[in-house]
Amino acid sequence: MESHERQFDRELQDLKKKLLRMATLAEEMIDRAITELIERDEKLTEAVARAEDEVNRLQIEIDEEALRLLATRQPVASDLRFIVAATKINSDLERIGDLVVNITENVHVLAEQPPLKPLIDLPRMADLARQMVRESIDSFVKGDVLLAQTVIMTDDQMDALKDQVLRELLTYMMSDPHTIERALALILVARHLERIGDHATNIAEDVIYLIQGRDVRHPRTARDKPPGGPQP
Amino acid sequence: MESHERQFDRELQDLKKKLLRMATLAEEMIDRAITELIERDEKLTEAVARAEDEVNRLQIEIDEEALRLLATRQPVASDLRFIVAATKINSDLERIGDLVVNITENVHVLAEQPPLKPLIDLPRMADLARQMVRESIDSFVKGDVLLAQTVIMTDDQMDALKDQVLRELLTYMMSDPHTIERALALILVARHLERIGDHATNIAEDVIYLIQGRDVRHPRTARDKPPGGPQP
Repeated sequence: MESHERQFDRELQDLKKKLLRMATLAEEMIDRAITELIERDEKLTEAVARAEDEVNRLQIEIDEEALRLLATRQPVASDLRFIVAATKINSDLERIGDLVVNITENVHVLAEQPPLKPLIDLPRMADLARQMVRESIDSFVKGDVLLAQTVIMTDDQMDALKDQVLRELLTYMMSDPHTIERALALILVARHLERIGDHATNIAEDVIYLIQGRDVRHPRTARDKPPGGPQP
Repeated sequence: MESHERQFDRELQDLKKKLLRMATLAEEMIDRAITELIERDEKLTEAVARAEDEVNRLQIEIDEEALRLLATRQPVASDLRFIVAATKINSDLERIGDLVVNITENVHVLAEQPPLKPLIDLPRMADLARQMVRESIDSFVKGDVLLAQTVIMTDDQMDALKDQVLRELLTYMMSDPHTIERALALILVARHLERIGDHATNIAEDVIYLIQGRDVRHPRTARDKPPGGPQP
């Protein structure tokens, strides 16, 4: 009986490891895409595409493993919530991978034209995005509610930065129509980074829900009607 | 024993009904946001916000109900896949609601300025988005793989339309810088509609995965390594 439980524990640890591997890949992808943007070096696109393949493969593996555990171990309480959260977090990480691929498509447009500006804020947005991905997954793996809350707060910084980038680029576009295509590509990069932040925030909210059994995803709704359901 | 099973069947039907209700709300939200854009009538924003509250509430309810069913019914095979798929589809519908709210924010920017163009393609994109949401959920509820495949094919139409809208609006911006702010708001509306299509596509892919136990989410990866795990 004890060895049965120990085996289940190991399986849960494996699931965690796979999610951590996905998160590390996502971080590396963001890093490469932004380096590509700064250095105007399209060779990194290949590396990003390879990393995305692995992210996609991990998503399938994690989903299959989660379904297998739900079917064979019939977990309850926190183990059950953990496994269901893993299948959701999984989807967020996969979409982060998609967004990085979108970024490299815009970088492709930009690499063909003379540089527009020193890009000061986009690398900062990329740093925030990477940090949010890392911390959201760490908060899941460690069950750290405070860290999850930090991620949610960092998202406000991200949104403020994105608004600033957008305003600045609008000014460029208006003063010189020749910059429009490039400015638009940069605006889209900013939006992709912002959306990566949104996915990290979703993960952080799932973590808080997982641990506290309390829904922070829709504070207003949650206040109107506290969620019932299984005990935390 | 039989009554136990019948009760479980009813619970699964209730889960389906809640997802259908969420999808209907999402469709109505898209409809209202685009009417608001066409008629430049901001009164509909309030209705969209109310619908989003209900979507958020349903998301919590469906998650809690799914967790309860997994814990108490310990389903296997197709029931298990159905419930896990419901928690994923749930997240897609909730994000569709968020995207519609984003659209109304851009509509707000547009309503303050003289109209830019007759908007011919954006209402078509909105129609496609609504159709994709409806058909993706119908394919889930009816277990209709062919319908799910239709949704995935419609997404190509959506992407083509979005590219066309983007090219057209870029031309506006370049020929008259006074149109830049409005054109950008319309580009963002087009992207939000495209992303709604992406979420419907995610749902359709989950449906095919659910029914066939075969992963179409990453065709290339899936071909490299067919997913193992539980039998369909």
